[in-house]
Amino acid sequence: MPKFSKIDAHWMSIALKLASNGRFSTMPNPNVGCVIVDIKGNLIGQGYHQKAGQGHAEVNALFDAGFIPHQNSAISQSYPHFTPVTSGATAYVTLEPCSHTGKTPPCTTALIEAQIARVVIASVDSNPEVMNKGIVLLQEAGIQVDTGLMGSEAQKLNTAFNFRMTHNKPWVIVKLATSIDGKTALKNGQSKWITGSKSRINVQLERACSCAILSGADTVIADDPKLNVRIDELPEFASSLFQKRAAQPVRVIIDGQNRLHNNYQIFQDEHKVMVFNAQHNPLLTANNIEQIQVALLDPKGNQTTQHRQYLDLQAIMHVLAEKQINRVWTETGAALSGALLNMNLVNELIVYQAPMLLGSDARGAVNIGQLTNLQQAIETEFEEVTQVGGDLKIRLLIKS
Amino acid sequence: MPKFSKIDAHWMSIALKLASNGRFSTMPNPNVGCVIVDIKGNLIGQGYHQKAGQGHAEVNALFDAGFIPHQNSAISQSYPHFTPVTSGATAYVTLEPCSHTGKTPPCTTALIEAQIARVVIASVDSNPEVMNKGIVLLQEAGIQVDTGLMGSEAQKLNTAFNFRMTHNKPWVIVKLATSIDGKTALKNGQSKWITGSKSRINVQLERACSCAILSGADTVIADDPKLNVRIDELPEFASSLFQKRAAQPVRVIIDGQNRLHNNYQIFQDEHKVMVFNAQHNPLLTANNIEQIQVALLDPKGNQTTQHRQYLDLQAIMHVLAEKQINRVWTETGAALSGALLNMNLVNELIVYQAPMLLGSDARGAVNIGQLTNLQQAIETEFEEVTQVGGDLKIRLLIKS
Repeated sequence: MPKFSKIDAHWMSIALKLASNGRFSTMPNPNVGCVIVDIKGNLIGQGYHQKAGQGHAEVNALFDAGFIPHQNSAISQSYPHFTPVTSGATAYVTLEPCSHTGKTPPCTTALIEAQIARVVIASVDSNPEVMNKGIVLLQEAGIQVDTGLMGSEAQKLNTAFNFRMTHNKPWVIVKLATSIDGKTALKNGQSKWITGSKSRINVQLERACSCAILSGADTVIADDPKLNVRIDELPEFASSLFQKRAAQPVRVIIDGQNRLHNNYQIFQDEHKVMVFNAQHNPLLTANNIEQIQVALLDPKGNQTTQHRQYLDLQAIMHVLAEKQINRVWTETGAALSGALLNMNLVNELIVYQAPMLLGSDARGAVNIGQLTNLQQAIETEFEEVTQVGGDLKIRLLIKS
Repeated sequence: MPKFSKIDAHWMSIALKLASNGRFSTMPNPNVGCVIVDIKGNLIGQGYHQKAGQGHAEVNALFDAGFIPHQNSAISQSYPHFTPVTSGATAYVTLEPCSHTGKTPPCTTALIEAQIARVVIASVDSNPEVMNKGIVLLQEAGIQVDTGLMGSEAQKLNTAFNFRMTHNKPWVIVKLATSIDGKTALKNGQSKWITGSKSRINVQLERACSCAILSGADTVIADDPKLNVRIDELPEFASSLFQKRAAQPVRVIIDGQNRLHNNYQIFQDEHKVMVFNAQHNPLLTANNIEQIQVALLDPKGNQTTQHRQYLDLQAIMHVLAEKQINRVWTETGAALSGALLNMNLVNELIVYQAPMLLGSDARGAVNIGQLTNLQQAIETEFEEVTQVGGDLKIRLLIKS
């Protein structure tokens, strides 16, 4: 007999939709949604995790159902025969409930206190240290636990989080905006605008669900961009969800040659900028700057003291992972994009392709050196193609 | 009251499907399908135009219903009270029936003889000289004529034919096979294979429904291609439909500098090759060659006697139109593709995009000169995106 009914799938799809509401604001935590359905099949509670440090999805859903978690001992002292409204109910949750006390008490305890009879879980925790622990605790309390319903949809909600948990590196996306013949700018540098206004709004959405926005000193010097989320350009649903978030995405700027100074726009606001360089840059004194030093490497990946070489991009990614950065959105030039690709540090490519031809003389998208054999090409696979205004948005996963 | 019922739409969609069966073989004629439905609503005949010089769709459908067109006077003499099986029936036809005697007698006469009561037409004839004449003849014979049902679908079946009729130029498609960053080959020329085997089969299908395959001497010299339809690589349905066709697509080769000679593969078979040059090339003596001279132009479009300039591409297209070439499929290098684009002679771009990056050092897709302003870009619009194996097939229409 199959573990899951159509009714189970119905409720889990609602839990997934709820979870996705957290995509602009839960970082560094994953997106989780929860639905509570009583013994008669009525929806009695729903919730999702909104922000690190605040209620988890299960607790929010229990609250919504009228059950106040983590009050059990007090209540049972006063009312020994108290039966919670959630008694016998089923909880549909997109991620395995946590079993540890972090900023909030464990969700497994709350579900047990609420006398939940069955917990349906889409995907287990990707953190190897806690994986399955929540499930075991629930089962030990006599709760029926069924896992794996819509597991791949649930995984996709937390691709970046899961990748950091399992690889100790952030999930890095390189964004390109090109013509149909792969050009990002004319030879003279003109690039405003190749893609349309809807694509540019879409970029704001992508920035808004990223932990960090990565760029290079070249781009900062050439364009003096803000690299922030322009809240008033977001669609209304995203704007209200984004405002639950603690802060703007961190700007991460790679400046191996200390070419930056305080006067660029990214240093004029209160939002954080991490500048990676080879040695401390005394010109960068603005309050929002954190400088971090990593080694300079020559093109073969050996340490070097010469300038005009690349900072250790691998080391930078480990620093970002340690800082709990899940998703890095990269908007930079062909040189840094190419270096990240060549170092095998990119997981995903998002190409906004405009329906125009700029010709062979225009600027290319990624500098990855001169290949002598097609086997050296960087291989990807198409994940999704959508129309955004008059442009195509093409998502590709890099084959590792 | 709407002119057309759901039942009308049902029958017309069958007629359209029939018409499309002719796409590999009717050239230079358009694709046409016809369905005959009797007074009780039963399908009694269906047909489509298969090959120039053979029966038109209406005549084939009448035959299929058991009525032999163009025998009326003989029959009515012998059997004055003869009632054809098609009497009172409705004919659904995707294109306005012809009213002139060409290689076959007019279809309007056949429909009138068959005592058809109503003719439903998807699109009127695009040839300004005959447009609406068939409709008027039918109406004068007392037949109800309703036009415009699924007209745009019918137009799309004959985009190239319609364009030649109205513009006296063929519909020119440039095919590109690129990486996601717009590259067609490595710097050293390696390009086998960027796109996958399914894309290459798809190219065979596109060649198979084209009247001509256009290329340049550069491509012939570099790759020595056959530029034919490899029938055994076509899917079965296409292979059997293609074999109704009179001949392989004509190869059209542009050789402004008389660099070709008999030894290339395209000159080794019995299928026709048109070579356009500035002066007769005495080395091209193979039986399948037709040489045609047009002027050499300098980059500004003025006549010149110097070599290393372009042949008059506009003149070439007019020659092709006079030869009743509807659809030109172009597979050539970045220089000739770019020249055709710059001369505004391209109607459609088909890009097979492979999921790999080749980097800025690889070869670009089209040489259109160095643009100094984005307003000079060649503008297109996305018409269709499909997945072909692991690649994307992107159809774009050039904005004129």
